[in-house]
Amino acid sequence: MMMTRGGAKVASSLMKAAGPRLFSTTTIRSLPHEASHLIKPAAADLAPASSMSGWIWTRAPAIGGVRFKSTVTLGEKTPTEEETTEAVPKKTENESIGGDAGGNKGEKGIASYWGVEPNKITKEDGTEWKWNCFRPWETYKADLTIDLSKHHVPTTFLDRLAYWTVKSLRLPTDLFFQRRYGCRAMMLETVAAVPGMVGGMLLHCKSLRRFEQSGGWIKALLEEAENERMHLMTFMEVAKPKWYERALVITVQGVFFNAYFLGYIVSPKFAHRMVGYLEEEAIHSYTEFLKELDNGNIENGPAPAIAIDYWRLPANATLRDVVMVVRADEAHHRDVNHFASDIHYQGRELKEAPAPIGYH
Amino acid sequence: MMMTRGGAKVASSLMKAAGPRLFSTTTIRSLPHEASHLIKPAAADLAPASSMSGWIWTRAPAIGGVRFKSTVTLGEKTPTEEETTEAVPKKTENESIGGDAGGNKGEKGIASYWGVEPNKITKEDGTEWKWNCFRPWETYKADLTIDLSKHHVPTTFLDRLAYWTVKSLRLPTDLFFQRRYGCRAMMLETVAAVPGMVGGMLLHCKSLRRFEQSGGWIKALLEEAENERMHLMTFMEVAKPKWYERALVITVQGVFFNAYFLGYIVSPKFAHRMVGYLEEEAIHSYTEFLKELDNGNIENGPAPAIAIDYWRLPANATLRDVVMVVRADEAHHRDVNHFASDIHYQGRELKEAPAPIGYH
Repeated sequence: MMMTRGGAKVASSLMKAAGPRLFSTTTIRSLPHEASHLIKPAAADLAPASSMSGWIWTRAPAIGGVRFKSTVTLGEKTPTEEETTEAVPKKTENESIGGDAGGNKGEKGIASYWGVEPNKITKEDGTEWKWNCFRPWETYKADLTIDLSKHHVPTTFLDRLAYWTVKSLRLPTDLFFQRRYGCRAMMLETVAAVPGMVGGMLLHCKSLRRFEQSGGWIKALLEEAENERMHLMTFMEVAKPKWYERALVITVQGVFFNAYFLGYIVSPKFAHRMVGYLEEEAIHSYTEFLKELDNGNIENGPAPAIAIDYWRLPANATLRDVVMVVRADEAHHRDVNHFASDIHYQGRELKEAPAPIGYH
Repeated sequence: MMMTRGGAKVASSLMKAAGPRLFSTTTIRSLPHEASHLIKPAAADLAPASSMSGWIWTRAPAIGGVRFKSTVTLGEKTPTEEETTEAVPKKTENESIGGDAGGNKGEKGIASYWGVEPNKITKEDGTEWKWNCFRPWETYKADLTIDLSKHHVPTTFLDRLAYWTVKSLRLPTDLFFQRRYGCRAMMLETVAAVPGMVGGMLLHCKSLRRFEQSGGWIKALLEEAENERMHLMTFMEVAKPKWYERALVITVQGVFFNAYFLGYIVSPKFAHRMVGYLEEEAIHSYTEFLKELDNGNIENGPAPAIAIDYWRLPANATLRDVVMVVRADEAHHRDVNHFASDIHYQGRELKEAPAPIGYH
């Protein structure tokens, strides 16, 4: 998400001013004068302040910018008052600056370079926002009304190849995991997060070398990869991996990454279709996971904190609630990938159809 | 950016209600009931409605979600009223659905699968928001006060290797481009957009196989790559590539991608340091570009539309304004990459220091 440097600080202020007060900031440095025009929503316009319903946040770009004056030094006290960025005199191309100015290594190695003081964002209950990989404005509520039963009937040879590849991969997977769906989710999400990243990267490189617009598809696929990675970050709180499971994950990543990379270069149509079918299988697996939770074979413990924040679940959410939202995400990925494959089947390129960005 | 499915539609409504009215929507389907709690900012709280100063946008997640009912069909009229997603009866794992239900190929190939109707967003002057790869809320104003003269003095062997590699690459580059800075910018941005993507992807894979948090660095690096790609999308409006320049770009991408990939695996410390130095050179080149614009050797034409929208430039912005904001972006990338290298030099991993996300 792109914001001006001051934007995040202003965002913190605004979130403090706006209600319901899910988020507030603890450290706010002096804001630019222009940012004092804060939106103060009339109370009647706000959604009720329940933990599940619409919280509203506002964001205003800082005019003129705010420059961070302190740097992050690991393992040392974060400087607060002193000026740590040294003024560097203008240099010509042939001069180099000796001494400490210009960021020599040594104890002040990080401190002498302009770093970024992370904003302190707190939740309504006063606890700090813990996550660096996503911010409050990047959280969402999953759409649980999505049709889970959709299936793309294979019609061409490539479709059937994709379908039966996925079906045949199910056999060893079922043998290995059996009914251990927590472990299954954790390990398979390490695989699921690869295609979006590979596809996004290849589209990125194509956009660069062909001097072409992307249609938003780079962002859509990278978003998918990040979403799957968040599934992993969630499930690894539930099922801790054993040493041989870690070894297996490393091996599978090496094989699958390269195979999908080559597959996407040869036939993105096939690659997306296969991911669509993989997601259909994921939906089925999560449905089975829910059954095991409901019949008590798997303990329905509390939802991990990261899941509660990421999917805006209630504080008393359980693992079952998490599986429901994750399954909804997978259904959306299914649709995006089948859609992408369909576009290829129509003889078009992805950039010709606006990408479905911002939906999980 | 992650939003609920209804979020984008609600965003459109809110942008219409909020002022100054830089953006409005033309097609809004029925909004969820809960989204009627719109923030109506008191006029006195709003920043003045000049095209450069702070516009404020609000966003509220839709509660309950909104499901898009039409699909994108390429080359056909976008369906508006009719229900195009067919209800698919629940199936067991062994059934498959024949016929048109379930999304068979054929004329309704795309229409029969749940696609996404792109939101129509318009700007204040009534023209449509043209860009799929970024949305209004992803635009920003660059911080032009950033220190352009910062230089990291090489102190270790790896630093010096990185520094002199970059300096030596300058020689053939200067020979090829001479004072043709428009062409230089266009072609070198195809190179500059690679490291962020490679680094982000490698960190993504590492996070997956090690079951580790990322500290936000995947997002930071991917953001850098996308920002550089936007520089390219801008400069290719200014300098159209010739066939041999395209051939050169393809060749260089093949070499540089692989070299940087291997370099990042072997020594991320070196890789980030090299990118830091590359950005320092980029700042210098853009400063020279400005000189050529100022002395009239390069025509200071109007800024491309994509640049005006992306960097929130005034409507009468020129190429010079674009080069100023692009140079500020490069300065920020310089800082991020030197910072990342410094973290490695301290014997730490990137995930131990919160990443500088959201600043360009």
